[in-house]
Amino acid sequence: MALPSSASLGHHFPPLSATTHSSLAQAFPRASAVEAPPNQKRQLRASIHVPTTLSNLLHLHVGSAHAAGTTAGDLPTPAAIRPDTPALSPKEDISSLFQQIHGRGDWSGLLHPLHPWLRREIIKYGELAQVTYDGFDFNPFSEFCGSCLYGRDRLLAKLGLARTGYTVTKYVYAMSQIGIPRWLERSLHADAWSTDSNWMGFVAVSDDAESRRIGCRDIVVAWRGTIAPTEWFEDIQGALRPLGDGHGDAKVERGFLDVYTSKSERTRYNKTSASEQVMAELRRLVNLYLEQGERVTLTITGHSLGGALALLNAYEAASALPEDVSVSVISFAGPRVGNSAFGERLKEKKVKVLRAVVKQDVVPRLPGILFNERLKTLEGVVGKKMEWVYEHVGMELGLDVKSSPFLKHGVDVAGFHNLEMYLHLVDGFVSREREFRTEARRDVALVNKTSGMLLEELRIPPNWNQAANKGMMCNAYGRWVKPTREAEDIPSPYREATDAMAEELGRSRPYIHHVAE
Amino acid sequence: MALPSSASLGHHFPPLSATTHSSLAQAFPRASAVEAPPNQKRQLRASIHVPTTLSNLLHLHVGSAHAAGTTAGDLPTPAAIRPDTPALSPKEDISSLFQQIHGRGDWSGLLHPLHPWLRREIIKYGELAQVTYDGFDFNPFSEFCGSCLYGRDRLLAKLGLARTGYTVTKYVYAMSQIGIPRWLERSLHADAWSTDSNWMGFVAVSDDAESRRIGCRDIVVAWRGTIAPTEWFEDIQGALRPLGDGHGDAKVERGFLDVYTSKSERTRYNKTSASEQVMAELRRLVNLYLEQGERVTLTITGHSLGGALALLNAYEAASALPEDVSVSVISFAGPRVGNSAFGERLKEKKVKVLRAVVKQDVVPRLPGILFNERLKTLEGVVGKKMEWVYEHVGMELGLDVKSSPFLKHGVDVAGFHNLEMYLHLVDGFVSREREFRTEARRDVALVNKTSGMLLEELRIPPNWNQAANKGMMCNAYGRWVKPTREAEDIPSPYREATDAMAEELGRSRPYIHHVAE
Repeated sequence: MALPSSASLGHHFPPLSATTHSSLAQAFPRASAVEAPPNQKRQLRASIHVPTTLSNLLHLHVGSAHAAGTTAGDLPTPAAIRPDTPALSPKEDISSLFQQIHGRGDWSGLLHPLHPWLRREIIKYGELAQVTYDGFDFNPFSEFCGSCLYGRDRLLAKLGLARTGYTVTKYVYAMSQIGIPRWLERSLHADAWSTDSNWMGFVAVSDDAESRRIGCRDIVVAWRGTIAPTEWFEDIQGALRPLGDGHGDAKVERGFLDVYTSKSERTRYNKTSASEQVMAELRRLVNLYLEQGERVTLTITGHSLGGALALLNAYEAASALPEDVSVSVISFAGPRVGNSAFGERLKEKKVKVLRAVVKQDVVPRLPGILFNERLKTLEGVVGKKMEWVYEHVGMELGLDVKSSPFLKHGVDVAGFHNLEMYLHLVDGFVSREREFRTEARRDVALVNKTSGMLLEELRIPPNWNQAANKGMMCNAYGRWVKPTREAEDIPSPYREATDAMAEELGRSRPYIHHVAE
Repeated sequence: MALPSSASLGHHFPPLSATTHSSLAQAFPRASAVEAPPNQKRQLRASIHVPTTLSNLLHLHVGSAHAAGTTAGDLPTPAAIRPDTPALSPKEDISSLFQQIHGRGDWSGLLHPLHPWLRREIIKYGELAQVTYDGFDFNPFSEFCGSCLYGRDRLLAKLGLARTGYTVTKYVYAMSQIGIPRWLERSLHADAWSTDSNWMGFVAVSDDAESRRIGCRDIVVAWRGTIAPTEWFEDIQGALRPLGDGHGDAKVERGFLDVYTSKSERTRYNKTSASEQVMAELRRLVNLYLEQGERVTLTITGHSLGGALALLNAYEAASALPEDVSVSVISFAGPRVGNSAFGERLKEKKVKVLRAVVKQDVVPRLPGILFNERLKTLEGVVGKKMEWVYEHVGMELGLDVKSSPFLKHGVDVAGFHNLEMYLHLVDGFVSREREFRTEARRDVALVNKTSGMLLEELRIPPNWNQAANKGMMCNAYGRWVKPTREAEDIPSPYREATDAMAEELGRSRPYIHHVAE
């Protein structure tokens, strides 16, 4: 799925409403104390309406890196928009609380207000989910469209997460054609790397240092989702499919299950399904670390469709892996996946689910009333419990676009669903009753990486994530050419085959190297 | 004016018609000798229809830089798309013919067929005109929107023309507001560098080596134009204005004259008009080089609106400068500018005009029948001569989109007007009767820099000219920020004032340094 048209059009300037304009002023009242003189105001009308004083404040700080945070007589500039403040928080040893952070006790006592350690872990997993977008080749002109831009040994480093403390051990592919909803990307090249498969995510494992910090060996699966919620309306099939024998009445949305389980001998990367690929890797890693006597956790993350796949994956993993591996899901903007029986089975299997949900985002409300007019009429009769048939599971972390003083509040279906926007809201969240954290320091500019949600006065261009000259480079002959990928970054079915055979032979894979401390 | 909507939407994939598909095959018949097997053909239907063998040929050459140009049994790949062939032609000493190339004798004997030396000079001036686009800040989020991205001492080097043999000596600004048609850019920033002016072009002069090569000291004025022809329909005012006393019946289109002559004491960069700025610099340079006993030529170039301004500028220069400075205009996609009396006066003043005009481009047909319904009805009565009132001047170099085997032929109003597309057609032009030059070696990829005119099978993304992350950079604190411009690249009214005062004081300007040989 390409970006939705509203987002891909680039700049758009809805007139800032009075509400939008005043939100920053409310949060930082001194920032708008000085009013622009009347004649200056008249000039502004033709351009963007910029609350002049906050702009000035921002400018001051751009120029004076040493005066971090304050100007004489002003409230401190929020850390999230100070260019001279590190964007990362220091990492503390959270091993004393990790089981709770990982979901034991259903996060009781950690969500209201949100515990800072839990907040930081949610963002850590969210950033790993974000990697599945930032690392994805969306370019329909590329013969590698639908693959990962980088080889797995350097994926995290290429995307600025070298110090995240995880090592990617496996890429997961899902079929993108034949019977699959149009959620996935297809290359327009006839001789593409694969016309059948999409890179759908990865398995990673915490290195020794990170494992010590959090108190266990943490295996992560990050599932890629969809960016454009408009396609959901078209493609949610609204058909529940039973999971089959041994799963009772559990049923899940057919489209999600198709993505998770489809395979074909005629493909290059999906001779096995996404499910089979990920489960083989999870068994291998779990065995490896359990044999070493380590405590092992499995955390599955994903945004949007990725959140749905995370649930299916968690269900399967909790069924197949040893019981002493605790399984939790940290999802963002995930839709409903199955019926109440599916939810009950997940609970029985002790899968812990924490869903970050933005109130204004439509996707978490899907599949719902939109897909089935018949059910809509039943709404008043059968009551709230039966209203949807599809049911959410686990704990919800409810977020609100209006809580952030940095965001536009006008309707933006794609913006409300954006993962970076979610992470921004998590970073500022304390509780429903409390205001956006002024000490939140995650880089606000990231919100506009693939959205236009930031207030214009912050001067961050919307949808700024783009390659220089769409990847064209001027070569030594003075010609503009599309450079070929480095060999390490070109997808190869041999790499995947090697994994499987190494496992059969009981050999360790030489490229699983933990980051040196 | 922003890019027209059709261009700024990015990728678009009209199905390739049979005609389009066959054009490359016609030009290079062996390239499509091998047909794809039937089952492969079926696969192709869902993707872009790519003539497989030419693609393979291109791929072969990407991989084998040493086998430049041929593969066993194949026709040579055209130089224009060989990634391993220098894009520039060697520069010959053309001093023996420069007066003719500069227009003496109205280019007789040089146009049919097009003399290779003249072709190369036309492209040289066209590339200087292209600089006014490539160097322009179109970003409405930039506080420098409407200015040149680079200081004049490094403009050409920044845009890959370090070796062009010219030194920029002056920037020219024109008013962009008040009474001016909406052809020019306006920043959306309230505190922009200037809300009144646009960078409109530059004056440059040939360095010693280039002057020796061409046989004279060549002063160039390059005028910026408009990219989006759609705005022409709205903004051509269709009102002829007399040039006034001493100019007889000569009249020109009011809008062009407004851009050329508007000024206001209340502005920062247009206390003097574009006309006054450029004429002062021309007088200074002409005096300087005539005093040194050199032969001096003035070549004025521009695309689109820039072509119109070039004519006005040439008219004024030929009136004001010493007669021994020959004045010529090399324009691209220029509209009609004035009435027949204006054309006559230009001829009297010995201004030589060579207009490159693409048959499919609408702008050179403006102002015309479109603006005046009354004249349309007169058409049959008064005959062809009176049909337009506005009249073209000089010699026309007629180009045809269909002559190039690399271009789409479907209607693309913006693409037909694109300057890089013009330069591509000039590069391949021999004569109307002859085919596109197979030895043309100008980089074909440039056509898609700001258009989508290239055939998809060439795999050059449309509109590929874009800044990495819209100029956002990750700073040392891990934050994405918009870096401020380097001081040399920030427009400053002092720089312009210095020029004027240095002239008054009779001092040379230290930053006019000729490029060392």
